[in-house]
Amino acid sequence: MGEADGAHLVTAALVVIGDEVLSGRTKDKNIGHIAERLTEVGIDLREVRIVPDVEADIVAAVNALRHRFTYVFTTGGIGPTHDDITADAIAKAFGVSIDVDPRARAMLLEYIAEKDLNEARLRMARIPDGASLVVNAVSKAPGFRMGNVIVMAGVPRIMQSMLEAVLPELEKGRPMLSDTVLANTGEGDIAAPLAAIAADYPEATIGSYPFRDEDGRFNTHLVVRARDPGLLAEVGAAVRKMVASYARFA
Amino acid sequence: MGEADGAHLVTAALVVIGDEVLSGRTKDKNIGHIAERLTEVGIDLREVRIVPDVEADIVAAVNALRHRFTYVFTTGGIGPTHDDITADAIAKAFGVSIDVDPRARAMLLEYIAEKDLNEARLRMARIPDGASLVVNAVSKAPGFRMGNVIVMAGVPRIMQSMLEAVLPELEKGRPMLSDTVLANTGEGDIAAPLAAIAADYPEATIGSYPFRDEDGRFNTHLVVRARDPGLLAEVGAAVRKMVASYARFA
Repeated sequence: MGEADGAHLVTAALVVIGDEVLSGRTKDKNIGHIAERLTEVGIDLREVRIVPDVEADIVAAVNALRHRFTYVFTTGGIGPTHDDITADAIAKAFGVSIDVDPRARAMLLEYIAEKDLNEARLRMARIPDGASLVVNAVSKAPGFRMGNVIVMAGVPRIMQSMLEAVLPELEKGRPMLSDTVLANTGEGDIAAPLAAIAADYPEATIGSYPFRDEDGRFNTHLVVRARDPGLLAEVGAAVRKMVASYARFA
Repeated sequence: MGEADGAHLVTAALVVIGDEVLSGRTKDKNIGHIAERLTEVGIDLREVRIVPDVEADIVAAVNALRHRFTYVFTTGGIGPTHDDITADAIAKAFGVSIDVDPRARAMLLEYIAEKDLNEARLRMARIPDGASLVVNAVSKAPGFRMGNVIVMAGVPRIMQSMLEAVLPELEKGRPMLSDTVLANTGEGDIAAPLAAIAADYPEATIGSYPFRDEDGRFNTHLVVRARDPGLLAEVGAAVRKMVASYARFA
């Protein structure tokens, strides 16, 4: 791939904030969506952490990740209730102050009548000093971007709206492309020839994913990934050729 | 809760290993299941990390977590192909050697004919020195337990079988119980009285989870969590009483 690609590598981590995910009560729907969208636009998601609603844990995760990756996204914990502590945690992680932001307050007033803008709802306008806002097209209460950290809501529809609002302003690299080949055999049958192909093409990655098909047999998806379409086609062809001579089910 | 409970606190972290989850190709189904089962039996899941198929990243995650929690579970990366590197990474994390384990080889032979037990499949019998095996009732290739780290498959049905096999031998604490109350109003309307209840009962936790109902309105689930059934009932009653005077939709 060479230096030209290396120079354009854009990476990200995601911090999912919420006791409800760790207790199993809520099944997270944001990780898969964010992973897919970032991959599509050319941002490589490299790590995800799910942490509880504990300020020290949020601060530690954000500070561990923001120096290692181009961007850190967070989801959850920016509502009006006592368990919404993400904005304060981000202010603490960056060592800045936090207060009601007049821009954010004005956004809330587009959705909430002034008489209903109680102290709790006003908490949603508390933004760390120096952050820019991320528009929320669904219910107005904004997310924000502090340095390379992008703070989004946990409700999937709102999170998705915020992600689309912020993506246009982010750096992107060359997207990682993928090609999936159904092996029609168990992965143990093709592991050796597959490893040989992987060794021949160190610039591509090849993943092998077993699954049980409708007949209860273990079948395998082989996924070739590369940024260069020509390389992807070449490795994909090599995998298809190999699979044709090993397939047992088709 | 006092020292008696503190002494019985059993905690866990989970490391999900797999490029396919970070690329969005595979939507993880293991986190939610493991979170639910551990909560049920009295093991508190405190952190989840999703890391790529990169040895250094797996080693770093496991070593960062195994000293902080009672147990660390891992999923993924224990198959026969070149991208299955979890067993080697665990051996490296513990600084022990790894080789084909005769007990694991015997288990493979229950499912795979000796003539089909090629070098690739035999990789699934490579177990770090000193580890105990975790039975796989689905397809025999075992997981293992090295110290406080429990290594499981990524295929959900196999992972679930391994989890059930290992749970009986683990320490458990007093399970965290929960009680969910539908608020029938937006969380901004009840944030202040809810915070007052939370302050009255520091030994319980109360989470507030907004969601859009079928009519497109933002409704709220309030989730009270406590280990003591009496305390749970008391806080649940306080939340229900509060909610009755604020509900707007019901």
